[in-house]
Amino acid sequence: MHFDTIAAISTPMGEGAIAIVRLSGDEAVQIVDYIFRSPSGKKLKEEKSHTIHYGHLTDPISGEIVEEVMVSLMKAPKTFTREDVVEVNCHGGLVTVKRVLQLVLKEGARLAEPGEFTKRAFLNGRVDLSQAEAVMDLIRAKTDRAMNVALNQMEGKLSRLVGELRQALLETLAQVEVNIDYPEYDDVEEMTVPLMIEKSTWVKSEIDKLLHTSSQGKILREGLSTVIIGRPNVGKSSLLNSLVQENKAIVTHIAGTTRDIIEEYVNVRGVPLRLVDTAGIRETEDIVERIGVERSRQVLKEADLILLVLDSSEELPEEDIRLFEAVSGMDTIVVINKTDLPQKINLPKVMELVGNGKVVTTSLLKDEGVDELEEAIAGLFFEGNIESGDLTYVSNARHIALLHNARATIEDAINAAEAGVPVDMIQIDVTRTWEILGEIIGDTVQESLINQLFAQFCLGK
Amino acid sequence: MHFDTIAAISTPMGEGAIAIVRLSGDEAVQIVDYIFRSPSGKKLKEEKSHTIHYGHLTDPISGEIVEEVMVSLMKAPKTFTREDVVEVNCHGGLVTVKRVLQLVLKEGARLAEPGEFTKRAFLNGRVDLSQAEAVMDLIRAKTDRAMNVALNQMEGKLSRLVGELRQALLETLAQVEVNIDYPEYDDVEEMTVPLMIEKSTWVKSEIDKLLHTSSQGKILREGLSTVIIGRPNVGKSSLLNSLVQENKAIVTHIAGTTRDIIEEYVNVRGVPLRLVDTAGIRETEDIVERIGVERSRQVLKEADLILLVLDSSEELPEEDIRLFEAVSGMDTIVVINKTDLPQKINLPKVMELVGNGKVVTTSLLKDEGVDELEEAIAGLFFEGNIESGDLTYVSNARHIALLHNARATIEDAINAAEAGVPVDMIQIDVTRTWEILGEIIGDTVQESLINQLFAQFCLGK
Repeated sequence: MHFDTIAAISTPMGEGAIAIVRLSGDEAVQIVDYIFRSPSGKKLKEEKSHTIHYGHLTDPISGEIVEEVMVSLMKAPKTFTREDVVEVNCHGGLVTVKRVLQLVLKEGARLAEPGEFTKRAFLNGRVDLSQAEAVMDLIRAKTDRAMNVALNQMEGKLSRLVGELRQALLETLAQVEVNIDYPEYDDVEEMTVPLMIEKSTWVKSEIDKLLHTSSQGKILREGLSTVIIGRPNVGKSSLLNSLVQENKAIVTHIAGTTRDIIEEYVNVRGVPLRLVDTAGIRETEDIVERIGVERSRQVLKEADLILLVLDSSEELPEEDIRLFEAVSGMDTIVVINKTDLPQKINLPKVMELVGNGKVVTTSLLKDEGVDELEEAIAGLFFEGNIESGDLTYVSNARHIALLHNARATIEDAINAAEAGVPVDMIQIDVTRTWEILGEIIGDTVQESLINQLFAQFCLGK
Repeated sequence: MHFDTIAAISTPMGEGAIAIVRLSGDEAVQIVDYIFRSPSGKKLKEEKSHTIHYGHLTDPISGEIVEEVMVSLMKAPKTFTREDVVEVNCHGGLVTVKRVLQLVLKEGARLAEPGEFTKRAFLNGRVDLSQAEAVMDLIRAKTDRAMNVALNQMEGKLSRLVGELRQALLETLAQVEVNIDYPEYDDVEEMTVPLMIEKSTWVKSEIDKLLHTSSQGKILREGLSTVIIGRPNVGKSSLLNSLVQENKAIVTHIAGTTRDIIEEYVNVRGVPLRLVDTAGIRETEDIVERIGVERSRQVLKEADLILLVLDSSEELPEEDIRLFEAVSGMDTIVVINKTDLPQKINLPKVMELVGNGKVVTTSLLKDEGVDELEEAIAGLFFEGNIESGDLTYVSNARHIALLHNARATIEDAINAAEAGVPVDMIQIDVTRTWEILGEIIGDTVQESLINQLFAQFCLGK
């Protein structure tokens, strides 16, 4: 396809050693050649692909030197976008990199939209849609495991699986078509229905397997939204600190107009915990006071995991029982803290309230029991089977929705076939399933959806 | 020189399209070769310098794919450090880039200290110390003008100037030495003293010229610390908003342990204003209330520029007069706002209080007078001469201190010579001046100072 030439800053904004302005398109080389001065006077367009060139960017009007740069030249088609790609590596820093960007825009490049480079890789056929989406997941990955899931998807594992299912459906449809068109034998009609049921049932079971990984995949991708609750002074801050200290938190700042949102991720044995409202815990220890407030209930409701902290040196006060009620029906781990003090807590009552939930005893003061807690967290969601690195996890909400959709449609087909519905009616459902699965890899999606998907990317990718 | 092989993340931390792990040293190529798999099976050590290679990083033990990468290969000596440099370009994102770094560290690279790449460029003789320092200034530059100053310095303009002065001193010393050692003629002694005075006076006047640029250079480099004061409702927030809106603020977050510091920079005609306590102004408008407080006086004392806002629709209240007293002796621009309302302010009294200071009238409501204010700000510090892009500004506090030092020492030499002190005594001062100037370019500095200087750099540079 033919597109115009785009440019964007491809490194994160901030002060760093190196920043990159990336260009892609037919005029990328020409634009940079116009402002690039090599000490030897060479021109990029005459140089080989995949080479690096030292020189200066100059303002073509004033002749003034703008930056000292290294230019990476990658000519089509063996590039990220399959177009000519030029990467201008300049000294990091907000002003320098912006000035380089302004210069290439002035010379005719257009500012890329978020995700537009990856979109071109998709539109030019280098990757399919699920692979393109994995690029963004890889960038946003919070743990090694999440990264592996994204990497597998980027390498095309999910695409191949989906492709196999679609191929099976297509072959069935083709065979049925042939049988209907050439009904030389009497038993043809009967033969096609069992075949459809067989193939459709296989596809459904494969979809089930994929969906089975989805809750884990989603957690790996988005993190486990975790809330620590408990009365004041039971050790919530200590618990938070042990988790953060032992696991090196990744703190993400999301700059807003009025106030920054700070997300804190803790990597517990490969499971990313997204700690909710930790600033609140640290500053005021007052989350319990706010339990009555609607907003706090909302936070609890949206959490994937509750860590409910109790004080083993006190009997079970009425407040704690109310906390149990507030989290009933949710994934909760009860942390009985302060085992270093004489035990007064009503343990049978705690066990009764916990039900099937997990209980861990800790002395955060003495740094005891944190390992057991981490094991409990990982066990709750992964039951030890996550180590098999080769498993394809479905992690993307869009993919999960499409798989559910495909599953319902193929189930319709199976039910219809079993109820004796005519084959050409069943064909419609099978075809629809094939189409839905195609949306995962971008084979049958609409342009508006594509635009929307890539708009979620970060700039310069 | 021979050093071990270092590695660091060279792009800013954060989510971005591209992140770079940079290695420098004799083993850089070998380390990456060990974990890099090209589809064609080629080895980097057999490839030409300044070439780019697509492939995957794999864990050499598990064989597992870690990342999809582009590797930039730059062999010594034509590199940033003059050593072998390998840059691994991977998908941005905190986890991915950290994992790549861990892998190269495991294979034998050492984590670089902040500034260590640039330090090697210095130690290996590719740049001198003032050029190395300019690299960091370039990264931290807040405006185009500040960037130009850093760029000029990086290209070696300051180094050349300092070199000329040192050369002049050295030639004088040599000539005096020759004259003393070969006193064949009677008038030699007399000849050397005038020569020394003449040369030393020239050096002193050149140092003066450089120092003359230093206040401007320092402002360009560090920003003009600016405080907006005034009673409530005179228009401080509106003033802040007009400055920010018209000039696209650069907001720098400095992540701290407990709380982030947010610096807001506004680029006013090339002059970076660092707006102090703008959060305070925006949230509470209470800076006036706090004027009595010691801390607020401290903020005022440290400011380079005060914008004192008055309300033209009111007479001059006692509070305003106290504000004038608080800022007396400081660089102040008085902003008489609300000219859209009937004027009641006691203008002769204002003019009396202002003295030689500048006054600008604005109607921020009608967006009038902001241009004049910006002109006044730029004019106050640069008197219109900043446009000459070629001027070498001394901007670095270390350089300024050394220049002051050199100036004092050469002045001693001139005074001594004029007082008839023996030539070999004067020589000591001249030699000392030569040494002090050498510290600017790193010719005569101690290792401890070098370590300290580069430690201020960001990681990966």
